[in-house]
Amino acid sequence: MNEEPLLEQLIEALRCLPGVGPKSAQRMAFHVLERDRDSARHLSTVLSKACDVIGHCADCRNFTELERCRICASASRDSSQLCVVESPSDVIAIERATGYRGKYFVLLGRLSPIDGIGPAELGLDQLKARLAEGEVSELIIATNPTVEGEATAYYLQEMASQQEIPVTRIAHGVPLGGELEYIDQSTLAMAFSSRQSLSR
Amino acid sequence: MNEEPLLEQLIEALRCLPGVGPKSAQRMAFHVLERDRDSARHLSTVLSKACDVIGHCADCRNFTELERCRICASASRDSSQLCVVESPSDVIAIERATGYRGKYFVLLGRLSPIDGIGPAELGLDQLKARLAEGEVSELIIATNPTVEGEATAYYLQEMASQQEIPVTRIAHGVPLGGELEYIDQSTLAMAFSSRQSLSR
Repeated sequence: MNEEPLLEQLIEALRCLPGVGPKSAQRMAFHVLERDRDSARHLSTVLSKACDVIGHCADCRNFTELERCRICASASRDSSQLCVVESPSDVIAIERATGYRGKYFVLLGRLSPIDGIGPAELGLDQLKARLAEGEVSELIIATNPTVEGEATAYYLQEMASQQEIPVTRIAHGVPLGGELEYIDQSTLAMAFSSRQSLSR
Repeated sequence: MNEEPLLEQLIEALRCLPGVGPKSAQRMAFHVLERDRDSARHLSTVLSKACDVIGHCADCRNFTELERCRICASASRDSSQLCVVESPSDVIAIERATGYRGKYFVLLGRLSPIDGIGPAELGLDQLKARLAEGEVSELIIATNPTVEGEATAYYLQEMASQQEIPVTRIAHGVPLGGELEYIDQSTLAMAFSSRQSLSR
């Protein structure tokens, strides 16, 4: 048996969660021990099970415990639209906010040669093969508007153009409710240069 | 098997931790799945074990997986001093900050008749019996300076006085580095009224 008291082991173990420092870990440990052991046991079970069985969807690389995730397996989703995002949380955000009925491809990262992340790590071979199948008629790029996200978007655009598949990119500009006066310069500059014609 | 995807179950289960809302739970779930499955498995094991075996020390009511906690079981701690605190985290704070070598008694709460928390819930019978044993020569009250904490302190003081055991209370006043100008009124009023004589 380990020499360290179990309580301290628990506090230490909780720190593997992002954003949890020594103080929060201590508060969490005392909270579950004092008031919520049943939920904590449930968390322990689900966590261990999730670590063992959650893998990646064979089609879109999103997290799932199945061979194919629910979106890829669904007959009611439109296979002609494919939206490329960086992370699983982007899928959740788009599903929640939009009425998008197409499918996704999750890169699980962005091109970043300095960190050794190239096209292979992002599954771009798999994406290329999928585009070659000819089912996709619109590739929607929804990478983040960061330097690496832009580079990734450019790479994806080149890839789709070679296969003559129409590419779109989600709009970047002034957010709803944002005031021009307080918006950051780069966003305003981008919004200005990507202005759209309203005349018919 | 449950219908809900395992990932959503995990996100929901993580919310039993205090201070974890839907967004943080999602971030935690993705973080552990993407980068830290080993630590998460370890957390799962320790959490489940802690819920099963951590109970309360027979002497001081603090959390421990043993019959008696390390402080109560230690031969090098002075049994003549007994410090009464509200919660296990107070013990950690005092151990960390001070050179106190006596023992503790953890109330696991404070007197609060409106919530149905009376002397019995705080183990005050047990404390009374301990004081009656005659080993304790100083009862140090370290409850929080809140309304309930003060009421608890008063109750403890009465109890010890009946058994003619000297009682002390940790000092409350202006914290080190605090400036009088910015301190709240109640603290300043208390610090002023509990001023101590410096003349010999």
